[in-house]
Amino acid sequence: MTEKFQPNWINEPPKKNSFRSIFKWGDPNEFKHPNERLYKLIKKTFGLDNHNFIQPSFNTGNNIVEETPPIRISEEIINNLNQICGKENVSITPYERVKYSYGKTLEEAIELRSGNISAITDVIVHPKNSDDIKKIVELCQKNKIPLHVFAGGSSVTLGHRSEKGGITIVISTHMNRVIEFNETDQTIVVEPGIFGPKLEFILNNAKRLLGSKKNYTCGHFPQSFEYSTAGGWVITLGSGQASTYYGDAKDLVISQKYITPKGEIKTKDFPASAAGPDIGSIFLGSEGIFGILVELKLKIFRHMPENKKNFAFIFPTWENAVDAAREISQSEGGVPAVLRISDEEETDVGLKLYGIEATIFDKLMKLKGFKSMQRSLCIGSTLGSKEYSKTAFKNVKKIAKRFGGLYLTGYPTSQWEHGRFKDPYMREDLNDYGVYIDTLETSVKWSNIHKVHKEVRAHIKEKQNIICMTHSSHFYPQGTNLYFIFISMFESNDEYINFHRGIIKKIHEAGGSLSHHHGIGKMMSFMFKEHIGKNEFELLQAIKKHLDPEMIINSKGIMEME
Amino acid sequence: MTEKFQPNWINEPPKKNSFRSIFKWGDPNEFKHPNERLYKLIKKTFGLDNHNFIQPSFNTGNNIVEETPPIRISEEIINNLNQICGKENVSITPYERVKYSYGKTLEEAIELRSGNISAITDVIVHPKNSDDIKKIVELCQKNKIPLHVFAGGSSVTLGHRSEKGGITIVISTHMNRVIEFNETDQTIVVEPGIFGPKLEFILNNAKRLLGSKKNYTCGHFPQSFEYSTAGGWVITLGSGQASTYYGDAKDLVISQKYITPKGEIKTKDFPASAAGPDIGSIFLGSEGIFGILVELKLKIFRHMPENKKNFAFIFPTWENAVDAAREISQSEGGVPAVLRISDEEETDVGLKLYGIEATIFDKLMKLKGFKSMQRSLCIGSTLGSKEYSKTAFKNVKKIAKRFGGLYLTGYPTSQWEHGRFKDPYMREDLNDYGVYIDTLETSVKWSNIHKVHKEVRAHIKEKQNIICMTHSSHFYPQGTNLYFIFISMFESNDEYINFHRGIIKKIHEAGGSLSHHHGIGKMMSFMFKEHIGKNEFELLQAIKKHLDPEMIINSKGIMEME
Repeated sequence: MTEKFQPNWINEPPKKNSFRSIFKWGDPNEFKHPNERLYKLIKKTFGLDNHNFIQPSFNTGNNIVEETPPIRISEEIINNLNQICGKENVSITPYERVKYSYGKTLEEAIELRSGNISAITDVIVHPKNSDDIKKIVELCQKNKIPLHVFAGGSSVTLGHRSEKGGITIVISTHMNRVIEFNETDQTIVVEPGIFGPKLEFILNNAKRLLGSKKNYTCGHFPQSFEYSTAGGWVITLGSGQASTYYGDAKDLVISQKYITPKGEIKTKDFPASAAGPDIGSIFLGSEGIFGILVELKLKIFRHMPENKKNFAFIFPTWENAVDAAREISQSEGGVPAVLRISDEEETDVGLKLYGIEATIFDKLMKLKGFKSMQRSLCIGSTLGSKEYSKTAFKNVKKIAKRFGGLYLTGYPTSQWEHGRFKDPYMREDLNDYGVYIDTLETSVKWSNIHKVHKEVRAHIKEKQNIICMTHSSHFYPQGTNLYFIFISMFESNDEYINFHRGIIKKIHEAGGSLSHHHGIGKMMSFMFKEHIGKNEFELLQAIKKHLDPEMIINSKGIMEME
Repeated sequence: MTEKFQPNWINEPPKKNSFRSIFKWGDPNEFKHPNERLYKLIKKTFGLDNHNFIQPSFNTGNNIVEETPPIRISEEIINNLNQICGKENVSITPYERVKYSYGKTLEEAIELRSGNISAITDVIVHPKNSDDIKKIVELCQKNKIPLHVFAGGSSVTLGHRSEKGGITIVISTHMNRVIEFNETDQTIVVEPGIFGPKLEFILNNAKRLLGSKKNYTCGHFPQSFEYSTAGGWVITLGSGQASTYYGDAKDLVISQKYITPKGEIKTKDFPASAAGPDIGSIFLGSEGIFGILVELKLKIFRHMPENKKNFAFIFPTWENAVDAAREISQSEGGVPAVLRISDEEETDVGLKLYGIEATIFDKLMKLKGFKSMQRSLCIGSTLGSKEYSKTAFKNVKKIAKRFGGLYLTGYPTSQWEHGRFKDPYMREDLNDYGVYIDTLETSVKWSNIHKVHKEVRAHIKEKQNIICMTHSSHFYPQGTNLYFIFISMFESNDEYINFHRGIIKKIHEAGGSLSHHHGIGKMMSFMFKEHIGKNEFELLQAIKKHLDPEMIINSKGIMEME
């Protein structure tokens, strides 16, 4: 092997109708291969050599989806669906049945590579509008057919798993339109299947496209932004990368409309109201178990990218970075839009990934005594009006300095921004060579962040040869989140799943939330009752029973255990 | 009559155990009599003269509560209560039975003056802790006895009305303690019966009293602040005068604990979580129908009064003031803490009340062409860190100028602040002389604020001789509230109630929320189902049925109509 060796990363789009085309992230023609530094780290961690990267060691899944279990839905029902939505919007092909039953968890990707598909839906429908959905719900209700919804398909919690089969509504095919735009109220009404880029493009170009006075932004930029929908953001309680400023997905919602087996639920669109409990909150985070979201009124924000100010700091330790981030969150001096602090291990990997290692910054850090596997990287930006952004920026700088932060300009943040929607592309490369990469995340209070971080990290590190990087990236005066990224190798998918579920348990035991922004899905449902409590769980069950007495919609979903 | 005539406002505290001691606002020894300008306006509006103000024309209610209907609770149950809470914490005196069945609506005050009491409770208990409450709930559940909760008693929505009698828990007598204080998380755990001043005093003096590094504030200052409790704020979805900055009561809640007939409900205290629907939101605004709140974790904020900056402006018209307030709310330039814009009529009355009329400011306004019954007053202040407060202040000034606002310094705001918790004291004076004063409030979107304002105002003004003042005082990027204050004379309480319910209907028809921050109570329950919708109402019913199958807790409360 010469120094010029390049790992044989797959650089071809997956075959049409292949398993790989289902699990591969994002644009079929887009790739982000691990850079040289990450590649070296992986080789070192797992004792691999260049020769291990000549031919994929895992099944690449680039074979066609052909055989699927028999369809459990009668022809009569399929005919009914044809009548409701039009024949062209109903499908029972093996490929669509598999495609719309899988999300983007690692375990699903590994399963799809093997071709051993399980738990798939029977019929796919692409409804044209909420009337179609109403009729489909009635049909399923009458015939007790399980009904699922698929939007962007970026679920990382087995949200699409369909044990009993049934009908899956793909809501993003047609129901992705802007229904109403109100500049006076700064709101937009959309169908739930609208993808991030479309929504953001329309808002960024509102003057031209909608005849408004100003241009706007949706304010929500999760890593899945390009391949997730507004409906998905809301129903699973997502958070965008600028959530510290714009709020989490739930904070962006003004009103919602659902079709439930019990009829339509439409929530009021007042900016605030004291007319009884907020009905909308019952549905936010319900992950499809109470009804099918068909309309959404969202807040919008002024688009002022010209006021963005990037910053980055290196702190002597993770503890310093946490203290600084807490002070930023509690100081009432204006909040940053993006804020992200990385623990010791993520800092070291991050400096590799963002191309900081071996630059002038790296030299400066070393010179000033910031030590590898101690130092903690902080990146971020401020937004808002010109004056607000400036005020918040100055506040961050002042506080960072107070906690020992060394200012690194905005360069590391620009580097991160450049790749921020692209990192998921690396998974397929690593998986091709048998390396597992996955994430789990939780929310914590300031008072237990170190406990949760230490205990969960120690648990993960019980496994030999594992990279574990952690960051916090969503901030509140009362706490933040912890996001664990782990990279390792496993004997089998089962061994991996076992390990993964152990981390979930440990997160709960250490005092973290089961999820800060990915939701519960059917992946964490096994812990859901224990996590929220028996009486609280039974309250949700009572709501489910009222709205969906036949338990057809997304089965029991997040309450699957019962 | 000479110019020196002083109306004979009652200036004596009510007799002990009198009806007046129940309906009089606040401190028995405190009074705020209408000032000369308001007095003149009232005489002019209602065609009254000084001689009408020599002796109260209405029953002053200063007689002792002696006779009440028979008690419907058995001696056995009372003995049980004695055992649970101690004899000293159980009462069946006529005075307590009346006192704890009335809130602070005008119609209740008029009723109490007449001595014609209706709908009162039977037994009063002052539980010592949540264990007592658990036992009381079990007792009531077993014996199907109606159970009510009384905290501050400042309800203006007939929240305490107890048609079927039963047991009333007074939660503020003992359960008003601070349970836990966490400076790291900036949270405080309190019992629900803690009154505003006690909570705020402890927080303002946290360094001394709690050994913290900084002093804090609760951030919630409704007009009822001195006589309302943290539990009441939350359960009725109140808003404080600085809500634009700190958020509404619901935004201050981190977690809650309830005793329901179905058992204890305790919500998680994460700063945010994606682990299913937010259980806490179901209880916020439930006004006691789902369970009894026994513990509350609240956000706290840094106490930095030194950074407060007051401002006031006069705008040429109400439309200008609304446009400016909207721009302030949407500009992302930092939000004010207090912001209040008054319509034409309130501006004229306000200038009298705040002592601006006939000052240098008044001359300046006239000189600059701001016309009476056109001009619109705006007062407010900014808070936060020194830099944030300054940034927000400058933003407000810049925007106000853009919309034609003339800067009036911070003087009018200081005047308003001086009396901001005292205005309710004037009601007794006016009522003593047969003048009714009451308020109703709603939330609106920016796009329908003028419609709601015009239609509701026109409806109120259909009555001859009525003062109607309106302001907005809680701001969001998507809208605000409208607060109507009306002063008039009526033939009878029934005529008044009829008029009042007509306004509620009109608010709903015009497109406003039934309430922005007072809740629904048994006053607006007659419109509740129509307002939120049949399916939405039935969802709340299902929750009620699950948590309180015997319908004992606050009966059906806000769902009284069914």
